[in-house]
Formats: sequence, C-alpha cells, structure tokens
Amino acid sequence: MAWYNTVGPEHDVVISSRIRLARNLADYPFASRLDKTAARELIDKTAAVLLKGETNYKTVDFMSLTPAEARLYVENHSVSPEFIESTLPHTLVADESEGVAIMLCEEDHIRLQVLRPGFALREAYEKACGLDDKLSEGLELAWDENLGYLTHCPTNLGTGMRASVMMFLPALTIHKQIGALSAMVNKLGLTIRGLYGEGTEADGFMYQISNQVTLGITEENSLKKLSDVISQIITRERQLRASMMSDAPDRITDTVMRSVGALRYAHLMSSEEFLRHFAYVRLGIALGLVKDISYEQLGSLLVEVMPATLTLRAGHELDSNSRDLARAKYVRENI
Amino acid sequence: MAWYNTVGPEHDVVISSRIRLARNLADYPFASRLDKTAARELIDKTAAVLLKGETNYKTVDFMSLTPAEARLYVENHSVSPEFIESTLPHTLVADESEGVAIMLCEEDHIRLQVLRPGFALREAYEKACGLDDKLSEGLELAWDENLGYLTHCPTNLGTGMRASVMMFLPALTIHKQIGALSAMVNKLGLTIRGLYGEGTEADGFMYQISNQVTLGITEENSLKKLSDVISQIITRERQLRASMMSDAPDRITDTVMRSVGALRYAHLMSSEEFLRHFAYVRLGIALGLVKDISYEQLGSLLVEVMPATLTLRAGHELDSNSRDLARAKYVRENI
Repeated sequence: MAWYNTVGPEHDVVISSRIRLARNLADYPFASRLDKTAARELIDKTAAVLLKGETNYKTVDFMSLTPAEARLYVENHSVSPEFIESTLPHTLVADESEGVAIMLCEEDHIRLQVLRPGFALREAYEKACGLDDKLSEGLELAWDENLGYLTHCPTNLGTGMRASVMMFLPALTIHKQIGALSAMVNKLGLTIRGLYGEGTEADGFMYQISNQVTLGITEENSLKKLSDVISQIITRERQLRASMMSDAPDRITDTVMRSVGALRYAHLMSSEEFLRHFAYVRLGIALGLVKDISYEQLGSLLVEVMPATLTLRAGHELDSNSRDLARAKYVRENI
Repeated sequence: MAWYNTVGPEHDVVISSRIRLARNLADYPFASRLDKTAARELIDKTAAVLLKGETNYKTVDFMSLTPAEARLYVENHSVSPEFIESTLPHTLVADESEGVAIMLCEEDHIRLQVLRPGFALREAYEKACGLDDKLSEGLELAWDENLGYLTHCPTNLGTGMRASVMMFLPALTIHKQIGALSAMVNKLGLTIRGLYGEGTEADGFMYQISNQVTLGITEENSLKKLSDVISQIITRERQLRASMMSDAPDRITDTVMRSVGALRYAHLMSSEEFLRHFAYVRLGIALGLVKDISYEQLGSLLVEVMPATLTLRAGHELDSNSRDLARAKYVRENI
C-alpha cells in the first residue's frame, strides 16, 4: 500500500503528508562535484547503513533502469524529476509499506522522504527522525554548530527539513479563494502550489503546502506552524463544501455524477481530463454522493494512468492517442 | 405500441413513415368560417362514420383537456401544434396500435394521419386509403373533377396527400452533406427539414423528408418518387457510417459511449442535450457499439422526456430547472 491508494486522517481534505530531510556526508564533496567512483562508494556506504536490520527495504540502482522505468518512480512521487536526470550513479532505497523513499546522490547526498496518507505530519516526522538517527549513528553527516545541517542549496540549510501536505481543495478552488489562501500562507513563511502546475481543475484541485524556512527555526516549531495552518484550511474547506451542498445540491450532484459517467464510459481520455474527473469524483465521495467508488480505488488510478505507468503496462512506447485509449480503458475497467 | 417505441423496416436509418390526407365535407364551409354548432355537428357526424365497426378507436375532445394534456398529443406527434390552439370544438379520433390519428376541425375538416415505424410508406398508405374509403362511403367529401380534393390551403389541393419519412442521418450530418441533399430533394419537388428546427445535432440528427406537390400527380407517383429518394439516402447514409467506423473507430466509440454515460449519470439535462445524446446513442446501436440499450427503449425516451409529458407525470407545473432534473432522473431510471 502506498500513499495514493490508502486513506489516512482527514482524508476528505488531506491526501498525504510528507517529511523530507536533506543530509550530506562530511567526507565527500557535494554531489555536483562528485566523481562516479566517489558517488558509487557514497551510495554503497549509505545504503549499507540504511539497510542494516531492515528486511522490507529495496534498493533500486537507477543506472540500470530504462527511462520509462525511471519515470514511473517520478509518477508515484518516490523520486524527484531531477533525480532521474543525473549522470552520476544514483540509487533509491525505499520501503513502500512505510512510505519511505531515500534518494542517494540527488542534489544532496541523501534526500530522505517519508510520505504518509492523510494528515499525518507528526507520524511521518517521527519515522524520518528514526531514519535520521540511524544515519547519524552510522555516518558522519555534514553539520555546523551555528548553521545546522549543511546542504547543497542554501535554502535548505539548518534543519534541512521540508514538511509538506498535499491538500484536496475543490471548494476553495471553485470559490476562487486560493489566491487569498496563498497570500496568507506566504506571510507565514509557507508556500502553496498546484500539484502539477497552476492549481486549476486540471490539477485535480490538489495543492501542496510546505514550509519554506529551514534556518533559525526548530523542526518542532516548523511542524507546528504548518499543522496549525493545515487545520485551519481543513475547517474552511469543509465549511465551503457544506454551503455548496446546501446552495446548489443538484448542480454539484450533476457535475460529480457526470464525471463518474465519463470515467466509466469514455474511450479516449487525456490525463488533464482524467484529473478533472478524478477531482470531482473525489469531491463526490467526500460529499457522500458517490457511494460505489472508494478513495483507495480512485487514488490508485491517479498513479496507474500516468504516462510512464501506462507505457510500462503496455510493454512498448505509446503515442498520445494510444495513451488516451489505454488510460480510458484502464479507468473503465477499474472503477 | 407507437411509432417511437417500435422498430420497423430499415430502422437504422428510418424512424417512421407517415401519410396524411386532408379532406373536407362538401356541405360545410371551411373550418375558418365554421361556427361552434356546425363544428360540433361536423365532428359528431365524422366521428360516427370513423368509429363504425371499430373497437380500438378512442375519441378525445380537446375542449375538455388542460393545455398540458393537449401539448402531450403534440409531443407524441398525434396532432399539430395549430390544432390545439383552435377556439372551435376540435377532436382527435385515434387508434394508437395502428398509428392512426385523425384530427377533426383542424385547418381542414379532416386531417387523417397514419404513422408507422420504419420505412413503411406503402403500408401506411394502404391503411390511409382504407380510412379514406370509409369516409367517402359515409360522407360527402368536397371534391372537384378537375382539381381533385378541395382543401383549405391551395398547397394541399389535388391528392390532399402528404407523405413524409422521418430519417435518422448522423453520418450525412457529420459529413456536412445535408445542404447538398436538401438541394437534390428540392429539385425533385420534395422538402427536407430538421425534426425541431435547423437540422443539427440538437435535432437528434433527425430529418423529415416529404412530398410537396399534390396537384396534377397521382398518389402512386408521388409515393414512388419519395420512396426511391429515401432508398438512395438510406444507402448513402449506411456507406458513410461504414467509412466513419473504419476511419476513426476510437473517436466514434468514445463519443457514443460518453453519451451513454451522460444519459446514465447526469442529474440535470436540457432537452437539447438529451437529443444530442439520444442521437449518438442511436448511432451507437446502429453501429453495434451499444448493446445494452434497444431502439425501442431509446425511442420511448424521446417522447417521455418532452416538457408536457414530464409535467403531466409530475402532476404539477415544472420550472425549467425542475424539468431538467426530472428529465435526467427519468432517463437514468429507464436506460
């Protein structure tokens, strides 16, 4: 089970919570100045520490993957798009059941990520801390008494932590309140952005809200601030949904159920269109309008119909039209 | 069973065939100059002749109907829109199982219509002739040796017959060939028009093709000419459908199946939108893409979701939004 096909706390509004830690080894230059041999050595050393005593972890050497296979990991949010472009050796150490994905030799030597379904920042943070302790015990991490953890990019200096929450905000989006929300969270040192871009319907009404400041703040404070803001947004989103339902129940029901119909009947579907229907159906489940589709089912689709995943399932490259056909077919058969 | 929920010959392209005869009684002035007493007398006299020996016929006195009840008969094509506006007594004599609908005191004293499912002009014509004989035997009809039957409007003089066929022409419409078709049939003294207006998707791809000339032509010649043209159009429409399916099967399947989805899932639907989906689903049945909806089921909807029919079913007046809700609900539950 992964973040996208499992539900967690407050799953009507929060899709997933993520903690990411950036760490570097003291004895090696930053990744941009590493050579292949050193990179390989660093990877082996770090992986050995991480894998000690673990049975569920898998190690994926990205140098041995095809481009389509590598993109799959981007699509399920295990690795960053930048990671798969690297020409140095780069490896993922992951435990899907725990939501753990650790990139070795990304921008930093170690990018440790814990992703949990629902609003579960604290849980994700504790898991990340456990892994961080393990790293600290087995390796010498680059750390400065005044600055904290040293990172490749100065914006990560200090805690090296980025906490983020993927929220599902259809009511705030439909009521055009994302602009105001964005201004508010920016003032608090947080950022908000659409899942794939501008934060429209085509993003499935999904937004990532994350902390910006890593320097001069403790992890605890940073997490608390983010959690408080998320809680407020959850409340506001739920209020707006309730008033949408009391103001125009027929119109919402119509929009939601048409999206169910499109997912179940279309034979050609772009990923943009899929995301739009995904979003309305997810809203419909939250509002109790859609009873025969679960969050888990719907969440699986989100990853299963992405281009690289479709391509791998087909076993050969697909042109855009064939992808739209394959996407529609997979959706019809799994919803 | 009526024309709209039964299938007849060539039903993939021809929805129904209709023969209409205009007749007047010799001893009465035309309807525009009749008074109420004379109108009532004429109706009673004519109805008595028509009902003799019949057990299935029903007589509907339109003076006793509410406006909504009267509109129902317009919507199922039993009477003309002008008929229900009359301030004189006006009555319908009908046998639904035979597709017979006879308006008494419309523009002409007697407007006799036989409507049959599919391409069945000959069958409809024979039934109409039988009824015409019955009228001639029991009543003195206005007839002139040189002109033929005398009618209120000179365009009906002569045979007093109008033959028409309701065709379903999605492929010709999509390929923008209706303009050329129209020019061709006009040259032959026939007319073509969209079911409810301009002949677009919103008309459900349905077109009525009818004879124009009633003077100086025999019924037989008129029917033959119309039948020949219809046969040619059927062939052309089927050819185009086959090439659509071989050129772009995915796109057609997608469009058709999305319409099935919309009919099964929407909660608000205007009659224009209904007609559009009706048309694509009907095409889908013809192409073998839709297997779990029958022509009969779909045809019933065509009448059942019209405004007056919805209103009568609801038992009270409906505003536009309530009609769209009721229409979508009826469709969802019956398809």
